[in-house]
Amino acid sequence: MSLGEFEIISRYFGSRPAREDVRVGIGDDAAVLDSRVDKKLVLAMDTIVEGVHFLAGTAASDIGYRALAVNLSDLAAMGAIPSWMSLSLSLPHGDASWLQGFASGLFELADRFDVQLIGGDTVRGPLVVTIQVGGWIEAESWLTRSGAKIGDGVFVSGTLGEAAAGLALLRDRVASGSDAEYLRSRFLRPEPRVSFGRSLRSFASAAMDVSDGLLTDLGKLCSASGCGASIDIDSLPDSPPMRALFDEEQRLQFSLAGGDDYELLFTASTDQVREVMAADRSGVGITQIGVIDEQKGVRCVRKGVPHFFKDTGYDHFMSAKA
Amino acid sequence: MSLGEFEIISRYFGSRPAREDVRVGIGDDAAVLDSRVDKKLVLAMDTIVEGVHFLAGTAASDIGYRALAVNLSDLAAMGAIPSWMSLSLSLPHGDASWLQGFASGLFELADRFDVQLIGGDTVRGPLVVTIQVGGWIEAESWLTRSGAKIGDGVFVSGTLGEAAAGLALLRDRVASGSDAEYLRSRFLRPEPRVSFGRSLRSFASAAMDVSDGLLTDLGKLCSASGCGASIDIDSLPDSPPMRALFDEEQRLQFSLAGGDDYELLFTASTDQVREVMAADRSGVGITQIGVIDEQKGVRCVRKGVPHFFKDTGYDHFMSAKA
Repeated sequence: MSLGEFEIISRYFGSRPAREDVRVGIGDDAAVLDSRVDKKLVLAMDTIVEGVHFLAGTAASDIGYRALAVNLSDLAAMGAIPSWMSLSLSLPHGDASWLQGFASGLFELADRFDVQLIGGDTVRGPLVVTIQVGGWIEAESWLTRSGAKIGDGVFVSGTLGEAAAGLALLRDRVASGSDAEYLRSRFLRPEPRVSFGRSLRSFASAAMDVSDGLLTDLGKLCSASGCGASIDIDSLPDSPPMRALFDEEQRLQFSLAGGDDYELLFTASTDQVREVMAADRSGVGITQIGVIDEQKGVRCVRKGVPHFFKDTGYDHFMSAKA
Repeated sequence: MSLGEFEIISRYFGSRPAREDVRVGIGDDAAVLDSRVDKKLVLAMDTIVEGVHFLAGTAASDIGYRALAVNLSDLAAMGAIPSWMSLSLSLPHGDASWLQGFASGLFELADRFDVQLIGGDTVRGPLVVTIQVGGWIEAESWLTRSGAKIGDGVFVSGTLGEAAAGLALLRDRVASGSDAEYLRSRFLRPEPRVSFGRSLRSFASAAMDVSDGLLTDLGKLCSASGCGASIDIDSLPDSPPMRALFDEEQRLQFSLAGGDDYELLFTASTDQVREVMAADRSGVGITQIGVIDEQKGVRCVRKGVPHFFKDTGYDHFMSAKA
């Protein structure tokens, strides 16, 4: 069943719950929103492409969920409160069941975070989804990548590498059981750490989300902060499901170079470690994995000796991924 | 020459002139901007796809220009002041000369309107460009599609159909000379009517931009306003370049159903016609082409009698275009 653009918008993306601060929403040339006098505007935009960011044949609901999750994760990394989104959907066909699924995954997540769809564009083309998410943050309290200081500890929320392990399982389609199921869901349904990001504002010196892999992303944080970091591989968060299904070298590969976890990577003064750990009431889990130092770049130590790791990350233009 | 994502961003999209209200720009997880206490936030997002919105082989500089122009046009239709943009670029290759061209067209237009690039995403994929443009408008003074009233005049800026005529010439590649050149440029380099849109705030009852064709777009405006319209075909703005190269029926087709002009379509009380015409100091040209009435839908009159026109517009999911 092929639908027209106007029908797609009204049937799947129109009549949704409305926020009070949205003065003009979907259906006009542009959206109009109240601004927040006491806050700064925070904006992020991420694109996902079939065959690059998700496997061909991925359920439409997972694509809808993912397109928003990766954007909310960017707002989480700034410590911001998400409020609205614009959606650009380039689609080969106006297929009703696909659109139904996409909208269900998208709005499942949007409704949890009170994010309203305010507009966008629906065009015929290859399957490419772009979302621009916007929100607000208290003046001067946003987190950036550039605030890390020599001597700060390096921390991550949750576990690392599980999404990459899940993607490997989705590709091979061999493993069954709850561990495999859990890892696949870590790739398909990443949890944006929005409330944890909010709590970081009071003590983190720098923050970003882990989307391209720990070493790549920590390298960016260090570069932005004008410092380096040393990572203790033995302190990386343990993942029982990964341990059940992959050997140590595979796990290390996933944890250091696998992307898509959307956990928060942050730095904080080691004096504040206790405060950092107390923030763990969110239940998200916090692990110190290293320290910020003067020497440029990111170095790994394993069982007390330097460990050299070849694959330092993912660049869309350098390699094919999914 | 193939470039990585980080190199693409730093080389072509990084170090640009900075606006004072941009607190965090390109290079972090999200951008942070000052909000404007006295104004409302206006946001629009448009996507262009190779082979759908522009011909394969279009110069990269024209693609960069167009991607922003269609978005600025949406802000113009609201009466807003553009201020920043986010760019999502899905590209098959990180080709240096293509990127150079794209950036030159994009920033040529951006600089004219003091629009700063604040972030976005660069991914490997089919050629799809999405821009989200943001800006500000004085409280309660924005223009929408829904304010047209029975008895209002229907007006357009500039001429209609020239972009569609230019696209036809680009496809056929036969005509040479200044008329053909002018028409092609009307398709390749549409002028967003930003300052004219600002002037409309004081007297227009409804406004939108003409992107999908006059009859389609006026139909949307009427539908949003709960009214209909009657168009006098003989009063459509005259285009000497179109007259030089196309017969009357072709011109009518272009003017009524051709998209991509990005002129402003608006309604205003006929008492204010003189005021409307006075606004023409912008040099953009204003023509009354019809009136708003009670009867639902858009009707055409030609030489005093009803004229039935089959092709009522363009829907990305119903037909292929360029």
